[in-house]
Amino acid sequence: MASENADSLVISNDPLHPANLIPELCRSFYHLGWVTGTGGGICIRAGDKVYIAPSGVQKERIEPTHIFVLPYPQVEPSPHTDRVFLRRPALNLKESACTPLFWNSFDLRNAGSCIHTHSQHAVMATLLWDGPVFKISHQMIKGVRIAGTGAALSYLDTLEVPIIENTPNEEDLKDSMAEAMVKYPNAAGVLVRRHGVYVWGLDWEKAKTQTECLDYLFEISVKMKLAGLPTLLNAD
Amino acid sequence: MASENADSLVISNDPLHPANLIPELCRSFYHLGWVTGTGGGICIRAGDKVYIAPSGVQKERIEPTHIFVLPYPQVEPSPHTDRVFLRRPALNLKESACTPLFWNSFDLRNAGSCIHTHSQHAVMATLLWDGPVFKISHQMIKGVRIAGTGAALSYLDTLEVPIIENTPNEEDLKDSMAEAMVKYPNAAGVLVRRHGVYVWGLDWEKAKTQTECLDYLFEISVKMKLAGLPTLLNAD
Amino acid sequence: MASENADSLVISNDPLHPANLIPELCRSFYHLGWVTGTGGGICIRAGDKVYIAPSGVQKERIEPTHIFVLPYPQVEPSPHTDRVFLRRPALNLKESACTPLFWNSFDLRNAGSCIHTHSQHAVMATLLWDGPVFKISHQMIKGVRIAGTGAALSYLDTLEVPIIENTPNEEDLKDSMAEAMVKYPNAAGVLVRRHGVYVWGLDWEKAKTQTECLDYLFEISVKMKLAGLPTLLNAD
Amino acid sequence: MASENADSLVISNDPLHPANLIPELCRSFYHLGWVTGTGGGICIRAGDKVYIAPSGVQKERIEPTHIFVLPYPQVEPSPHTDRVFLRRPALNLKESACTPLFWNSFDLRNAGSCIHTHSQHAVMATLLWDGPVFKISHQMIKGVRIAGTGAALSYLDTLEVPIIENTPNEEDLKDSMAEAMVKYPNAAGVLVRRHGVYVWGLDWEKAKTQTECLDYLFEISVKMKLAGLPTLLNAD
Repeated sequence: MASENADSLVISNDPLHPANLIPELCRSFYHLGWVTGTGGGICIRAGDKVYIAPSGVQKERIEPTHIFVLPYPQVEPSPHTDRVFLRRPALNLKESACTPLFWNSFDLRNAGSCIHTHSQHAVMATLLWDGPVFKISHQMIKGVRIAGTGAALSYLDTLEVPIIENTPNEEDLKDSMAEAMVKYPNAAGVLVRRHGVYVWGLDWEKAKTQTECLDYLFEISVKMKLAGLPTLLNAD
Repeated sequence: MASENADSLVISNDPLHPANLIPELCRSFYHLGWVTGTGGGICIRAGDKVYIAPSGVQKERIEPTHIFVLPYPQVEPSPHTDRVFLRRPALNLKESACTPLFWNSFDLRNAGSCIHTHSQHAVMATLLWDGPVFKISHQMIKGVRIAGTGAALSYLDTLEVPIIENTPNEEDLKDSMAEAMVKYPNAAGVLVRRHGVYVWGLDWEKAKTQTECLDYLFEISVKMKLAGLPTLLNAD
Repeated sequence: MASENADSLVISNDPLHPANLIPELCRSFYHLGWVTGTGGGICIRAGDKVYIAPSGVQKERIEPTHIFVLPYPQVEPSPHTDRVFLRRPALNLKESACTPLFWNSFDLRNAGSCIHTHSQHAVMATLLWDGPVFKISHQMIKGVRIAGTGAALSYLDTLEVPIIENTPNEEDLKDSMAEAMVKYPNAAGVLVRRHGVYVWGLDWEKAKTQTECLDYLFEISVKMKLAGLPTLLNAD
Repeated sequence: MASENADSLVISNDPLHPANLIPELCRSFYHLGWVTGTGGGICIRAGDKVYIAPSGVQKERIEPTHIFVLPYPQVEPSPHTDRVFLRRPALNLKESACTPLFWNSFDLRNAGSCIHTHSQHAVMATLLWDGPVFKISHQMIKGVRIAGTGAALSYLDTLEVPIIENTPNEEDLKDSMAEAMVKYPNAAGVLVRRHGVYVWGLDWEKAKTQTECLDYLFEISVKMKLAGLPTLLNAD
């Protein structure tokens, strides 16, 4: 089913085509400090196709021809088969190790796009909040949507983002991320301790603005915590 | 009165036309960290027209055709009528939730432009100054103008910026912002606790440089406070 | 002697012409946080002409036609005459208030260019070093030149930058800056407490790299001081 | 053997030619704060040629014609001969003072590219880790390769980067850097106390991503140390 020649799936003059957007957005994320050193990235689901960047490459120098295209819903690879692709790059590239984590957002939240960052604000939040959940209230949380895809939170709500423990292999986070998403059905993202964060949205614009909102909140929360300021005014 | 076809109000080859400036300035503000995650923005009043960006969109990707045009002075909407527009985008967009706050700057200060940021420097200032007013002296405050539109402050003056309390809905800040502007007639901006700041000027250049000056002062003040340095040398 | 029509002094296709360089460099300085909110700038002396930016404008939006050209050596204005220009902009602009300070660098150090920043690293250094001189040793000071225009410092030397007290009017710093330059003949710059720094070099490239070196040292010194690390290992 | 006219070695339309890449990468490193004030840089080895930038110049304004080309393996200069070049710029430029240090990475690690930064994160790490080696565990170290050119580290490993003491002349670091590379055969870089870091890779992409990974780790480690958080969870 995979074809190395299915270039028509990633060649487009439309700047909003996923294969053009992913390289552009990754360049922008690089300058935000979210995806340096080959870490992090974004995937976009459009109808029955999922567009994913390669792993282990410079994220600010991705080309549309480097993009993988997978079917949605995915035919899960069995122990005896490889993952199924609609298109893979001719180069010797491997799809992002985040692929199964991105899939959680599609399957459990009906997301159209999922972003993974190694933002230091997210990592510091997981170090300064040592329990299983990051919480903040009375900040500009109203940009964040319930479950990442629902209605906006209110200024009076408490934002909760679960924190899962890191594993040596990115793929092994799939189950614990899914569990956290089930346990915290309103969570708009999942933090990974000492590693980063996964955030999603109904489409790439919303996934990106959700990530910006959460990253902003992680940053200000870390500043507040280090300054000795309370970060949670609501009764817990 | 509103017309979705009045595109001539926002289509111009002049880079200094408000409908071209707003997208350009919002891109710049995005990179300054002032308007990430759809928050914040700028409006420009030119003669009897006010140009306003949409709400809830990626502020670094606004197009001139997304801009709303309102008459000035505004025909205030009654409980039974909608807000009056000279031009609204064809897309399913809503005007910035800051609209009534921007209006305060026109009505009470005769401003030609007003900027709203979620700058973390402004937010941290509202957390570290817990009274109703932020004060600093003996810094480069001479770029700030009295009331935002008057003569420049002197190095020997004390800069005062009132801080109002946040509300769940942006619109509900209108009255408390207006009260603060009346109570502090020399204030060049109004801080909103745990939220951001509103700053204005006689035109977009001056609103922008006023915002830069104040943001610079919030940033250095927060650094000083966290380093244990006194921020107010004048007798209070 | 001043002519508003002497546009040939500032119109050139050469990107290295001072009237083209000043706008480009100011844009770059804006993004470094050195000249936001209309503060700071750069002047360039080429032979018998000095090129200076206007005061009170957005430094990242200067055009070549905004540049003032003055003769060097300057005919000092008497109480009854205005400053002498070879060219001034047609617009209602005033030359940079730093002009007499820039002149110190020409007269006392034979500089070809002088830069003034409001960098927060410089300002914080003046707050954390409360005596008349900022000192650091055992950092990458070897990029700094003795007196700003001489041989490079050695890693084993101590870098000294005098700090003068701020005044309400920029022009009034002229004498105390000159005194500091005489008292500290090896100084590569002069800090102004709660305000910023003046740095110079034999030409614009060297003035810029000197400013970068010093700003880097102010930044790391402030970080060290706040972390409780000693900043001076040489015997004082 | 040196020729000032061998311009064909540095003139190419291929953006990935080393003489085009070095200027582009240095511009990017400048904006990351790695090479301001003429410090730092990158060299690229391609087959039997080594491409090196000049010393003491603005690293963000290098042109391809400024690049030096040296043979590999190098004919070591004797006390009576100069270093041997295949091409040197017509201008009065000197090759980077890092040249012998870059050579360590070629000779001891078979690197294809080596990067030197003055990143403040690296410098602060050398100040806060006062022994001969920087160590961190349980962070995103898996982007770092064993010895800089081997297999990736695991999340469960401890990253070790030796720290050597600075010397007044860059060239004099050659032997102590080589010793550290021999003593720590798995090290992916060498920190220089109060100065910066050297990092390498099999080619320029990998040298760059290795540098990004290490710089990210220095940055987060410094934040953790200053926040009082433990940086080493593995038994030492």
